[in-house]
Amino acid sequence: MTEIVKKDLLYKGKAKEMYTTNDPDTMWVHYMDQVTAFNGKKKVQMAGKGQTNCEISALIFKDLANHGIKNHFIKQIDSNNQLVKRVKIIPLETVVRNFASGSFEKKFAVKHLMKFDKPVQEFFYKSDELDDPFINDFQAEALNVATEDQMNQMRAIALKVNDRLKEIFSEMNVDLVDFKVEFGIDSDNQLILADEISPDSCRLIDRDTKKSLDKDVFRKGLGALVPVYKEILGRLEKVEDVK
Amino acid sequence: MTEIVKKDLLYKGKAKEMYTTNDPDTMWVHYMDQVTAFNGKKKVQMAGKGQTNCEISALIFKDLANHGIKNHFIKQIDSNNQLVKRVKIIPLETVVRNFASGSFEKKFAVKHLMKFDKPVQEFFYKSDELDDPFINDFQAEALNVATEDQMNQMRAIALKVNDRLKEIFSEMNVDLVDFKVEFGIDSDNQLILADEISPDSCRLIDRDTKKSLDKDVFRKGLGALVPVYKEILGRLEKVEDVK
Ligand SMILES: Nc1ncnc2c1ncn2[C@@H]1O[C@H](COP(=O)(O)OP(=O)(O)O)[C@@H](O)[C@H]1O
Ligand SMILES: Nc1ncnc2c1ncn2[C@@H]1O[C@H](COP(=O)(O)OP(=O)(O)O)[C@@H](O)[C@H]1O
Ligand SMILES: [Mg+2]
Ligand SMILES: [Mg+2]
Repeated sequence: MTEIVKKDLLYKGKAKEMYTTNDPDTMWVHYMDQVTAFNGKKKVQMAGKGQTNCEISALIFKDLANHGIKNHFIKQIDSNNQLVKRVKIIPLETVVRNFASGSFEKKFAVKHLMKFDKPVQEFFYKSDELDDPFINDFQAEALNVATEDQMNQMRAIALKVNDRLKEIFSEMNVDLVDFKVEFGIDSDNQLILADEISPDSCRLIDRDTKKSLDKDVFRKGLGALVPVYKEILGRLEKVEDVK
Repeated sequence: MTEIVKKDLLYKGKAKEMYTTNDPDTMWVHYMDQVTAFNGKKKVQMAGKGQTNCEISALIFKDLANHGIKNHFIKQIDSNNQLVKRVKIIPLETVVRNFASGSFEKKFAVKHLMKFDKPVQEFFYKSDELDDPFINDFQAEALNVATEDQMNQMRAIALKVNDRLKEIFSEMNVDLVDFKVEFGIDSDNQLILADEISPDSCRLIDRDTKKSLDKDVFRKGLGALVPVYKEILGRLEKVEDVK
């Protein structure tokens, strides 16, 4: 592989900047020192946040690949930049829940952190204009967002990711409440896991203190965010097989 | 069968009164001269409405049974009363859509009456307090609302009902935009179609005038409702094999 050089900013999202490179199949991802919530309505700059998420996501994607879950991660460039396989993102957020929280808790008026007997999987349509509506397979197919086969694949992979993440977080003395992932189609037409997995996209609760160790600290204004993310990174680095 | 006698009012809903009878497996349904919309927020009394819906629903349920779709209908008592098999209702509204309208159109900001390549199926959780939220299979299972097997059965039966209803309404020069049905478990532990199928629970559009021939006339305040329902009943009575 010739050396990869960063080229044009393709997309600036709420947490990351995506750059093209000299290789059409490789993207350069810059994790920004920015955190947003409520579809971008709450937004703050925070030194160290990009780096922490970039490192957490890299460790997790490497571990998932080691556990047979294909994903876009190629390599870490420096503390807040990484290379990933360029994919065509399927505009669905695939959510898996182990305990009730967030929109589930609100919509169904159930007890906060009610435990589910088996994981609950949901899709949300990634559309800022529509406010990311909850969607089912029939609707997503009707809107040409994804095919039935793609949704079955995403569901199955997300549930496998959940199994492995639960193992990892369990060793960190943390409950995985829920998380969202994104998938894309690569240049070989394969559906693979993409985007990031970090405390921005997971709900995490310390098993002893019952405190949130994720973006809920920011959403709910519970204190400084970066130390919490650093705590997660620190515990993650100590997990035996995650390396 | 001994003569069935009406006994106690078990439940007074928004459109029907459900009475027990001398037979524990048989319910007496009285169709009221009342129409409601927006989860009961708009409510009006209308002479002739109960009778029309009672007769339309009876004709459709008899036809569906003739087409192999088991349902609760037993027999018509008089113009606005009928006997049905008593079931334990599964609290899900099973919706099938052939064209975009209502909540789908609003949620996804698509063109009114956009045609779907294949029917779109949705479940809504029947809960007045929660405002009948849209729900998926995982959520419904987690909330003990229905089992996966029951949802697969309801989905399959609802799609069969859609096929037959499209045939019937086609002969009436009417497009079936969407409809909702309810299912229940009978005393033999069988899942069967229940409740009603009428212009209260279907969206129907005249193919020539493009006018609504259903409860949307009431929801949107487009004119008198009962003549519209009578028009549907009149056309339905003329369909060759519906009898
Ligand atoms: N491997 C990839 N190839 C192309 N696009 C990707 C890849 N991974 C993630 N993306 C997309 O890049 C963007 C990442 O930026 P982010 O700040 O998370 O955006 P957003 O505000 O849309 O969540 C998202 O739109 C995401 O879907
Ligand atoms: N065969 C049946 N056995 C028992 N309950 C039924 C049967 N068919 C329908 N129901 C229930 O009876 C009620 C019918 O009344 P309705 O006015 O439609 O109520 P709602 O206001 O809840 O829609 C509904 O709750 C419906 O689920
Ligand atoms: Mg994002
Ligand atoms: Mg009803």
